Amino acid sequence: MEKMKRSPASICRNFWKLGRDDPRRAIHSIKVGVSLTLVSLLYLLNPLFKGVGENVIWAVMTVVVVLEFTAGATLCKGLNRGLGTLFAGSLAFLFKFIATESGKVFCAVFIGASVFLIGSISTYLRFFPNVKKNYDYGVVIFLLTFNLITISSYRVDDVLKLARERLYTMAIGSGVCILMSLFIFPIWSGEDLHNFSVSKIEGLAKSIAACVDEYFSDGEPDAGIDKSMEDPIYENYKAVLDSKSTDETLALHASWEPRHSWHCNPFPWQQYVKLGAILRHFGYTVVALHGCLQTEIQTPKSVRLLFKDPCTRLATEVSKALMELADSIRNRRQCSPEILSDHLHQALQDLDTALKSQPRLFLGPNGPNNTANMLALVAETTRPKPEKHLSSVKTESSALFDWRSKRVSKQSMEAEGRFLRPTLSKLAITSLEFSEALPFAAFAALLVEAVAKLDLVIEEVEALGRIACFKEFQVGDDVI
Amino acid sequence: MEKMKRSPASICRNFWKLGRDDPRRAIHSIKVGVSLTLVSLLYLLNPLFKGVGENVIWAVMTVVVVLEFTAGATLCKGLNRGLGTLFAGSLAFLFKFIATESGKVFCAVFIGASVFLIGSISTYLRFFPNVKKNYDYGVVIFLLTFNLITISSYRVDDVLKLARERLYTMAIGSGVCILMSLFIFPIWSGEDLHNFSVSKIEGLAKSIAACVDEYFSDGEPDAGIDKSMEDPIYENYKAVLDSKSTDETLALHASWEPRHSWHCNPFPWQQYVKLGAILRHFGYTVVALHGCLQTEIQTPKSVRLLFKDPCTRLATEVSKALMELADSIRNRRQCSPEILSDHLHQALQDLDTALKSQPRLFLGPNGPNNTANMLALVAETTRPKPEKHLSSVKTESSALFDWRSKRVSKQSMEAEGRFLRPTLSKLAITSLEFSEALPFAAFAALLVEAVAKLDLVIEEVEALGRIACFKEFQVGDDVI
Repeated sequence: MEKMKRSPASICRNFWKLGRDDPRRAIHSIKVGVSLTLVSLLYLLNPLFKGVGENVIWAVMTVVVVLEFTAGATLCKGLNRGLGTLFAGSLAFLFKFIATESGKVFCAVFIGASVFLIGSISTYLRFFPNVKKNYDYGVVIFLLTFNLITISSYRVDDVLKLARERLYTMAIGSGVCILMSLFIFPIWSGEDLHNFSVSKIEGLAKSIAACVDEYFSDGEPDAGIDKSMEDPIYENYKAVLDSKSTDETLALHASWEPRHSWHCNPFPWQQYVKLGAILRHFGYTVVALHGCLQTEIQTPKSVRLLFKDPCTRLATEVSKALMELADSIRNRRQCSPEILSDHLHQALQDLDTALKSQPRLFLGPNGPNNTANMLALVAETTRPKPEKHLSSVKTESSALFDWRSKRVSKQSMEAEGRFLRPTLSKLAITSLEFSEALPFAAFAALLVEAVAKLDLVIEEVEALGRIACFKEFQVGDDVI
Repeated sequence: MEKMKRSPASICRNFWKLGRDDPRRAIHSIKVGVSLTLVSLLYLLNPLFKGVGENVIWAVMTVVVVLEFTAGATLCKGLNRGLGTLFAGSLAFLFKFIATESGKVFCAVFIGASVFLIGSISTYLRFFPNVKKNYDYGVVIFLLTFNLITISSYRVDDVLKLARERLYTMAIGSGVCILMSLFIFPIWSGEDLHNFSVSKIEGLAKSIAACVDEYFSDGEPDAGIDKSMEDPIYENYKAVLDSKSTDETLALHASWEPRHSWHCNPFPWQQYVKLGAILRHFGYTVVALHGCLQTEIQTPKSVRLLFKDPCTRLATEVSKALMELADSIRNRRQCSPEILSDHLHQALQDLDTALKSQPRLFLGPNGPNNTANMLALVAETTRPKPEKHLSSVKTESSALFDWRSKRVSKQSMEAEGRFLRPTLSKLAITSLEFSEALPFAAFAALLVEAVAKLDLVIEEVEALGRIACFKEFQVGDDVI
């Protein structure tokens, strides 16, 4: 199958699609090609070659390794490389100074020992989370440069000259990288982070609306987690769930970028990371909502339909509010303080009212028997004897229990033919008929929970608007 | 504050703690130091130096760059490097063959063009998700080597000799890396993946038990998401939520490792990734459960206490089952087919019975007024006229609505002094008194949902047991 898909035509199509999806990829590729050609001119053109000599390979190496997709990543890597080289050079010359004072044998032993020590210590340093996150590449370059200089210094006398020449060519390479990444079609991590936040909020908005639509739709929802992998609802929120590392990497790189199209403060990358965390938490609620569509036990359609209108309205309002937030971030304006809560509040109230008006929901199947049962219970509970509740519950439950356990054992006997493990919990759940309303109650509660989380999202977006100096909200801005 | 924490004593403590937490870190650091020293001996010892010459720096570079923490990562990087170098070498010599046929000017133009083309194309290739995941480093090395050889070939005549010598020293460096990572205190990604899976399952087991305990505990749970960041419950499940990239990296590296302590098939890394995905989905349910502890609207303690026993039992059973699964993976034995479901089934049934015995839960505050209200509604619903339900709901809800909206407006007036946005949804939620049972119903439904997800986890662990040829379950194995 894998081989089948890899026909030349499909490879070409993929190749083309990759660039069409994000033309910056093609731009970046061409930038790398141009940079490499520029650097190689140093070697190919005679007058330039006389200036730099053989060491031009270090410029090539710098370009290949340092020039990354976004400006922030390039700067981060370049500065790491620069700092690593500088520290390593200083330390290596200090060590060389000590080593050359003494004899050849001592020198060799000293170099061996220092290579071992510096190698071990700097590798160990890389395990520190803080170092790993920000300076991992710098430490590798430090180790590399230190070893190259220290070892070479044993046989080459004029290491200083060698080092200086290499530094020159590295500086040329770095210069080309900075020129290319900052000034020619720059690609900013900050922009990516910004757009990623917008698309995450939009994804959540879409998936919460789709969840509620599907919950009240006429088609039977299929159970099972396998299906969720290609589910459009899942597609919309999955980017949010696993966004932590992307967020952090983009924010790290954005923190290295000089401010560009922004009028005020430096880029508020920390606020975007915070917003990302809140969005992930919102996403978990959406996952739980989505889970309500896929569980084994379901509230019957007839009961669900009673609440279709308030739930759909609430979801629509939440989704609209999220869309407005996404829109405000996209257009770099502060979000409307009004639109978010008026309708939402109304929708919440309607749901509340609808729920209050249906106290019969916590019952089992709608047979006349059961309703009688409930009436008896209600009669019992109206008596003001709260201490008696528990015992009355006990007797009632034990009576129901007998009936139910009989039923369950019968069902599991039937199931035994089909499954190897009759006591499997999946069977157990379907065979128990939980109060019909339980799954719906969970759905409603999660929807309300989503509203509460929405509030946190609004708070963070507002904070973002303040910190990033988004422009003030004006009435005409409101397009939704 | 940050500066305060960075006293020399605390740095030393951190330094020591890092190694104590995972002694393999110290071992790896020493391994890197030893490898570098071994390679530098090539340069320091006269007889060896005569054999390899100046090019020993390529061996040093290989060791610094390729020797990674785990054997799988080292092999992955080493093979990438090897393949990249090989392809680049072949291509560069092909190009050199074409270029040398013609004049010096054409040769320079040809080299420049090929540097541009190969640079652009291979950078573009790195955007393919499949290439990015498996061969990113290989492509970088390919680009680097191709450029070095192609550019050098313009002025150095015997590039072949140069390339061969470099290849030798790189082979020496790679040999040292393979020796160190595979044979001397090897650190396996597969082991890490295995242990990570165990710890994730244990974390989920702990947090689900802790969630239920806290839900029924006497202390008032605090609301708000900030607190959850240092919450022990959160601590236990947070590793699961963001485990996707770790899982995939470990699995990728494990896929390069030769089988070691295992008796049968190659390491079933794909199954671990699958298990990880299922565990993440289980984790989302735990997050939603945890969310029930932190919402604004809460079922009163008195009502919750009615269900304490069945819920706690169910959670204990789920937690026990997860612990047994973790234990079975840790000891590489198949999990017990019996223990998982008998008690769990019983606990589910008890919860079902308890829920059935409390039909009054969907009511509002327990005043006599409300109960009368409900009785009226019940009387109405007992009549077999399903078409009339909706209209009766409407009237009832509109009556309640008047009363409620009066109340809400009063509350929001009170709140106006404290908050800038009186219509904020958080206020709206707390001012609406949702049916008391709603939050609890959600909690119970999520608990049942967790049982359903547990089933999927059990399936995956059983599949893992089969694929990885874990030893058969024996009665004595069962320690829980």
